[in-house]
Amino acid sequence: MARINENFLKLQAGYLFPEINRRIRAFKAKNPHAKLISLGIGDVTEPLAPAIIEAMRKAIQDLVSSDTFHGYGPEQGYDFLIDAIIENDFKSRGVELEPHEVFISDGSKCDTANIQEIFGQDNVVAITDPSYPVYVDSNVMAGRTGPANKDGQYAKIVYMPCTAENNFIPDLPRSPVDIIYLCFPNNPTGAVASKEVLRKWVDFAHDKKAVIFFDAAYEAFITDEDIPHSIFEVDGARDVAIEFRSFSKKAGFTGVRCAFIVVPKGLKAYTSDGRAVEVNPLWNRRHSTKFNGASYISQAGAAAAYTAEGKKQTKQIIDIYLSNAAAIRESLIKLGYQAYGGRNAPYIWMKTPNALTSWDFFDRLLEKANVVGTPGSGFGPSGEGYLRLSAFAQPADVKEAMQRFTGVT
Amino acid sequence: MARINENFLKLQAGYLFPEINRRIRAFKAKNPHAKLISLGIGDVTEPLAPAIIEAMRKAIQDLVSSDTFHGYGPEQGYDFLIDAIIENDFKSRGVELEPHEVFISDGSKCDTANIQEIFGQDNVVAITDPSYPVYVDSNVMAGRTGPANKDGQYAKIVYMPCTAENNFIPDLPRSPVDIIYLCFPNNPTGAVASKEVLRKWVDFAHDKKAVIFFDAAYEAFITDEDIPHSIFEVDGARDVAIEFRSFSKKAGFTGVRCAFIVVPKGLKAYTSDGRAVEVNPLWNRRHSTKFNGASYISQAGAAAAYTAEGKKQTKQIIDIYLSNAAAIRESLIKLGYQAYGGRNAPYIWMKTPNALTSWDFFDRLLEKANVVGTPGSGFGPSGEGYLRLSAFAQPADVKEAMQRFTGVT
Repeated sequence: MARINENFLKLQAGYLFPEINRRIRAFKAKNPHAKLISLGIGDVTEPLAPAIIEAMRKAIQDLVSSDTFHGYGPEQGYDFLIDAIIENDFKSRGVELEPHEVFISDGSKCDTANIQEIFGQDNVVAITDPSYPVYVDSNVMAGRTGPANKDGQYAKIVYMPCTAENNFIPDLPRSPVDIIYLCFPNNPTGAVASKEVLRKWVDFAHDKKAVIFFDAAYEAFITDEDIPHSIFEVDGARDVAIEFRSFSKKAGFTGVRCAFIVVPKGLKAYTSDGRAVEVNPLWNRRHSTKFNGASYISQAGAAAAYTAEGKKQTKQIIDIYLSNAAAIRESLIKLGYQAYGGRNAPYIWMKTPNALTSWDFFDRLLEKANVVGTPGSGFGPSGEGYLRLSAFAQPADVKEAMQRFTGVT
Repeated sequence: MARINENFLKLQAGYLFPEINRRIRAFKAKNPHAKLISLGIGDVTEPLAPAIIEAMRKAIQDLVSSDTFHGYGPEQGYDFLIDAIIENDFKSRGVELEPHEVFISDGSKCDTANIQEIFGQDNVVAITDPSYPVYVDSNVMAGRTGPANKDGQYAKIVYMPCTAENNFIPDLPRSPVDIIYLCFPNNPTGAVASKEVLRKWVDFAHDKKAVIFFDAAYEAFITDEDIPHSIFEVDGARDVAIEFRSFSKKAGFTGVRCAFIVVPKGLKAYTSDGRAVEVNPLWNRRHSTKFNGASYISQAGAAAAYTAEGKKQTKQIIDIYLSNAAAIRESLIKLGYQAYGGRNAPYIWMKTPNALTSWDFFDRLLEKANVVGTPGSGFGPSGEGYLRLSAFAQPADVKEAMQRFTGVT
């Protein structure tokens, strides 16, 4: 008799975005002529950079003839992309990586969800609250948690509250933890971490023999020179951290699919009898057994983001979103709201007015301004009383959305 | 202290193909001028069909402008592709499916590896011997097995030998099993299953409340009208089976990446206290939590395989491989070898001569004929004494390879 994985039954109803879409559909049914503006889901809106388009066209041309055909590539990704990543994203910031430390994938959602598989079920996982829901849900599925409480928090997970009081930088956990998820620039709060903050976490991980999963999906939005793009800019991070990067927001690849993960050699985790084991070969085995490489076309496009033209063009696109972020942030502050993030990050995290719940304010904004945000409580209990606004929108829409904010409360 | 998933330490050294590549490299170093012909790894060699190239070019053009830009798509895949699949692959053969029963992915390797996650750790897994190594390895990683024995077989897995004696069709297991992996047309043996064979398995699964994972990655090679392409052509299969399909071999997508999985509504598995649970929503949750959709470009290309032109063109390519398969099979038989498969399938499974082991014959073929095959023992102990030859090669190369076979033994 086939049995299900009963951990799935612990999962709380619905991923955040289906519920948002349900409310939007209901609103549209009642208000068919309303012109909705979405600052909700974090999906890019600008077209791809011309250099990337050109590289993907060329890659397709390669598939027209036997001589240049590309079938299965290396599961770990093509050297042409790995080399460009190491040179441009890391060496340029003083971080040395070897090719075998970089694994190309089809997305950071997969990577951040899959990475936990190579770690034991008995690890205690620390996750910021609020956070990207995939970190929690993938651990629930793997059986690393107990059931959820009425707030939707799962037993055994150590939640680390991030609120205005701690500037959205989590405090070090006081109870034992083995695996720590960090994301900077943060989704959903837009908070960034200084080198000192990251150093504190790296030291903590060294001390506890813990592993940090560092999600740097939004590093391309960093403009301040002194904010690290990679956790590996901190000495000693190689021994305790795995980093996630994506082309989704950096180069507009949400529909094209390409990302990567850095698993440094030397990073170790332990068997139950205390023997240290290299993590990199475990991930290599997982990756090559359960994944068959990212699309050749996507990898060719991603590599073009590192050419001189590609860098210039993708930066211009990032600048559009950063300009949107600044406009949202400044408009909100001018209107008297408390707004965070939106600098070195594409997300603005605003406090709801009049102590409204996240969903109540979401509904009011939808009804009165026809603007869609993302309820902060959807990212965890500490997100209650906040709303996330995304800078991924057309500048004209952002401008109009902010005008409509006047008079919402 | 972060602990590793110790199940990974049970995995036997090396996936098959790295070892093959190591021996090829060593041979090339000693024989730099030898012209190797590979009938080894099952990767396509023909370029993509023009209709697919054209559709992918058009998809890239969509990404040039905001108006037609495609960012995140549905995790489950675009309707334009799902509808084409249902209409062409299933309805045409009398199988009715709903859109929510089809999930698009980036490859069958991922799907066949990931599907086990939604099932409990205590299921007993039945796997044919020989088989595609991913079935076994993904279950080892998940902790569904004990350690390996000296033959590389893992405790708790029920292996089902497939040999010339049973025409490479496994016998029904005598000990209890909960999950059954079947692959027809088979990799590596090239065996196909009649409707009667599949009906026997469907009845067995009904009787045992077991679930069948049916890998139909090679269905496009079926030419005999009476051989089912889908397990769902058998009445009652919807209640007990999940099916895997891929564009890799059907449309040359090994480098482009697109596949799908069919999880019928109504298929149930059980909690430990015997409650029946629908499997489709569990997979939907897994898929949408840990995967962000296949590339828009790849999905657009895959859909083009179902247009009138696309069907004609991909069939022409399949015919090239089938003609290669026939040539290999007939040449081997003419030379006095025992050869199986190669009809309705792109693989030929040959008995090694003179009771040589698979690796010994692999080495001899490499040395004497400069031809690369795949040692049968790499697919499981019952593959010992066999070699897999793949029809994925240029016809001229196949012809020359078969000439070189003369005098190998």
